[in-house]
Amino acid sequence: MIQITIIGSGNVAQHLIKAFSASKFVEIKQVYARKKEALVHLIDSEKIITDLNELQTADLHIISVSDNAISEVSSLFPFNNQLVVHTSGTSSMALLDHKNRRGVFYPLQTFSKSKEVDFTIIPFCLEAENTADYKLLETVAKSISTVVYSINSEQRKALHVAAVFVNNFTNHLYQIGQEICEENQIPFEILKPLILETSDKIKTLSPAEAQTGPAKRFDSNTIDAHLAFIQNENQKNIYKILTQSIQQNGKKL
Amino acid sequence: MIQITIIGSGNVAQHLIKAFSASKFVEIKQVYARKKEALVHLIDSEKIITDLNELQTADLHIISVSDNAISEVSSLFPFNNQLVVHTSGTSSMALLDHKNRRGVFYPLQTFSKSKEVDFTIIPFCLEAENTADYKLLETVAKSISTVVYSINSEQRKALHVAAVFVNNFTNHLYQIGQEICEENQIPFEILKPLILETSDKIKTLSPAEAQTGPAKRFDSNTIDAHLAFIQNENQKNIYKILTQSIQQNGKKL
Repeated sequence: MIQITIIGSGNVAQHLIKAFSASKFVEIKQVYARKKEALVHLIDSEKIITDLNELQTADLHIISVSDNAISEVSSLFPFNNQLVVHTSGTSSMALLDHKNRRGVFYPLQTFSKSKEVDFTIIPFCLEAENTADYKLLETVAKSISTVVYSINSEQRKALHVAAVFVNNFTNHLYQIGQEICEENQIPFEILKPLILETSDKIKTLSPAEAQTGPAKRFDSNTIDAHLAFIQNENQKNIYKILTQSIQQNGKKL
Repeated sequence: MIQITIIGSGNVAQHLIKAFSASKFVEIKQVYARKKEALVHLIDSEKIITDLNELQTADLHIISVSDNAISEVSSLFPFNNQLVVHTSGTSSMALLDHKNRRGVFYPLQTFSKSKEVDFTIIPFCLEAENTADYKLLETVAKSISTVVYSINSEQRKALHVAAVFVNNFTNHLYQIGQEICEENQIPFEILKPLILETSDKIKTLSPAEAQTGPAKRFDSNTIDAHLAFIQNENQKNIYKILTQSIQQNGKKL
């Protein structure tokens, strides 16, 4: 059985603790939180430590804390030459203190405290300094997910930028859709099937194939009518810049 | 049995013909296409007409042609005082020739020729000049869908703008995500679970509750690193304007 330790008590840490607790191939040896109460609902309180000096060595130590704390936390580990990884999409592997063997164990997903996730379909992006460590990360990732990729630090940076576009920015467009509905006494419910179908389409069509609408059709009558309708300057700017971007893409193809 | 006639052979017309053909409460009396071949794979060729003068009266006549042809097509109908509707999200009901009783029968969904849709969850937005006609539209819509709304022409305009944001623009963000992946030798597949989870979240969370990411956290280190990473000026502008918009929203809350 592979023994792992998780450092952190945030969203990602908690989802990982739940997923590993259900795995037959991995055992959680210790978890670290600043306050014990943060994790008692998830794991035996005997396994929770609140002082990094109590950390024991395990096969794998996963640091899942905010980006700006990764470096310091990794420097406080009371041992050397063990495998230590972080779970961040933005931080380089080199951020980890080099007194231990380093790696990255990044689950590419959006985690909310209030929503369960199906870990088996979450892509894990792995990186390690040597092949043996990579193999161990792969085994651990495959114990909870079916989708595992080798992604280096530079690629991970690109991936995180892409994730901001398809997740953060997309969600913000949903919010604008909701605002437009509410300003016009239309229930937002009415847009939800369209939102779900929009994402569902990319299972079978490329985004270029799936693109429809006035921008794609260069339908300037409709575009002008929409711009005249939108009163909010911010929404109008977003409408213009995304319409322009779709039309530039259309010309490239 | 309610008898309906469909004028048009585009995406929406074809999906409607398929859906109504499977309904027990509605019978398709005639369909009109400029060329018979456009529809022979869907319906008895005897029911296909290619000359609007051959149009017979039915309980409902659905015009599903491009926006700029609606007005002319409706003026060519060889009868008066019948119920005639269009399926457009952008066009006003008043675009229809007033020699007939007018209405709108707008399915709010994105249709692709190559992808089947589940009509039962598509919201139908209905409008009519009088109550009896509205009731008939409602009965017809409910024969193929479980989701029916009364939406006037002004609301429909707002809804179409909102749909452009949550469908057309969202799909374009997927395309940018794909471009960033490809430029960095990352398979786009890796982003698909995130894309699906992003839309799935709105079933249980409002967009404001679901919002995550560096913009929402006002994490200027990550935002600056992303802007430094993005070389494409167009992508950089979109990143900036959407980040700004999320942060304005954050301050409002």
